Amino acid sequence: MIPLDKLYEGKAKIVYPTERLDELRIVFKDDATAGDGAKRATLPGKGQLNAAISAALFRMVEEEGVPTHFVRSDGPDAMIVRKLKMVPVEVVVRNLAAGSLVRRLGLQTGATLRRPILEHNLKNDALHDPWVNATHVEALGIASAAELAEADDMAMRVNQALEPALAARGLILVDFKLEFGRDTHGAMRLGDEISCDTCRFWDSVSRTPLDKDRFRQDLGGVVEAYREVWRRLLGEDGEGA
Amino acid sequence: MIPLDKLYEGKAKIVYPTERLDELRIVFKDDATAGDGAKRATLPGKGQLNAAISAALFRMVEEEGVPTHFVRSDGPDAMIVRKLKMVPVEVVVRNLAAGSLVRRLGLQTGATLRRPILEHNLKNDALHDPWVNATHVEALGIASAAELAEADDMAMRVNQALEPALAARGLILVDFKLEFGRDTHGAMRLGDEISCDTCRFWDSVSRTPLDKDRFRQDLGGVVEAYREVWRRLLGEDGEGA
Repeated sequence: MIPLDKLYEGKAKIVYPTERLDELRIVFKDDATAGDGAKRATLPGKGQLNAAISAALFRMVEEEGVPTHFVRSDGPDAMIVRKLKMVPVEVVVRNLAAGSLVRRLGLQTGATLRRPILEHNLKNDALHDPWVNATHVEALGIASAAELAEADDMAMRVNQALEPALAARGLILVDFKLEFGRDTHGAMRLGDEISCDTCRFWDSVSRTPLDKDRFRQDLGGVVEAYREVWRRLLGEDGEGA
Repeated sequence: MIPLDKLYEGKAKIVYPTERLDELRIVFKDDATAGDGAKRATLPGKGQLNAAISAALFRMVEEEGVPTHFVRSDGPDAMIVRKLKMVPVEVVVRNLAAGSLVRRLGLQTGATLRRPILEHNLKNDALHDPWVNATHVEALGIASAAELAEADDMAMRVNQALEPALAARGLILVDFKLEFGRDTHGAMRLGDEISCDTCRFWDSVSRTPLDKDRFRQDLGGVVEAYREVWRRLLGEDGEGA
């Protein structure tokens, strides 16, 4: 096997080509950043845990009929995925008020919502991922209204798949960020990752965060919390890396 | 006639009751504020010009079949309107990139858009009118999805009515902010004002602003620009206060 140069290195993942043109290898890093890059740390074990958690959650989502880019785990910190042409928009699904929503709209953390909130952010580091809606996306030629509606519909189905499955494992799915893209056959699939870096998971009883908020808010026990999520996902049905 | 105490005083208008329970009197002030209240001035003549411009534009919108709260002008700086129960959401329609859109999304001022952009801001001074979308509005019980869709549809119809009518008068309708509410019969109507304080109007040839941006950007000639808009609206079809 010829070693292949990385295609792209992000804050928390590195993307490599594979010997198949339609597949990539994604390696999860131990690096963590927050506050638009102002806070940085290396958290040994985070990469492996996020790889295992993502694999388990992609499988759950696929079982509920939502296509994803996940093909298989590949070693303890990596996964093989289908190559997607990404829609450069993050879709955020919120079941309870937390994070930026609380600050922006003056809500209490944990406030219930009459329905899930869907938010969209343009993926653009230089602009700090500004919020957009369907009319911005269409007006600027980023995606068609139909494409964004398809991504939104898939995001709601991911929520319907994961929220009860996580509740059964003692976890509240507070909110999460998804990214979508088209595979080489033109079908929209869920891409990126579904992990403690991209979701807010609270313990159902104590309502304490078991996710990246522990890093953002300097609560300590970051890797321990990620491991607890992994343990609950693995413990119930034998999934994992 | 018994003098009646004002019901509400905003930054640019004062609302009075009338002897009819279903009507209000709105007086346009000469006061101007910008930058979330950081900049303040009194611009003699602004109130009368905005009252006349609003009256003319409400009439144009009504002629195109969009119901508004406008009943009649009442003296040089005031109008009688139907009392509405307001939806506490501002609807912004954008035909060209300007203002906050340019800053947020890194566009050029005046950039063309493939379709008009619709944005929504929650009316909340303490929170600085945060952006929301249809899911926030429903999730927080601010309005139903159907109500917001009705307001959006009316906003697009206002744009379709005003954009060509203003173009015929040498004005580009760059963007504008609308507010909607339900009258005492439950029908949704356009409320608030349509003026040089709430719209961006550019001269079609020079593309210079003839609106509140002259105040925001310290370009000078604020009242002169408002008078020019009024002159063009009045000159073509005899409307005005």
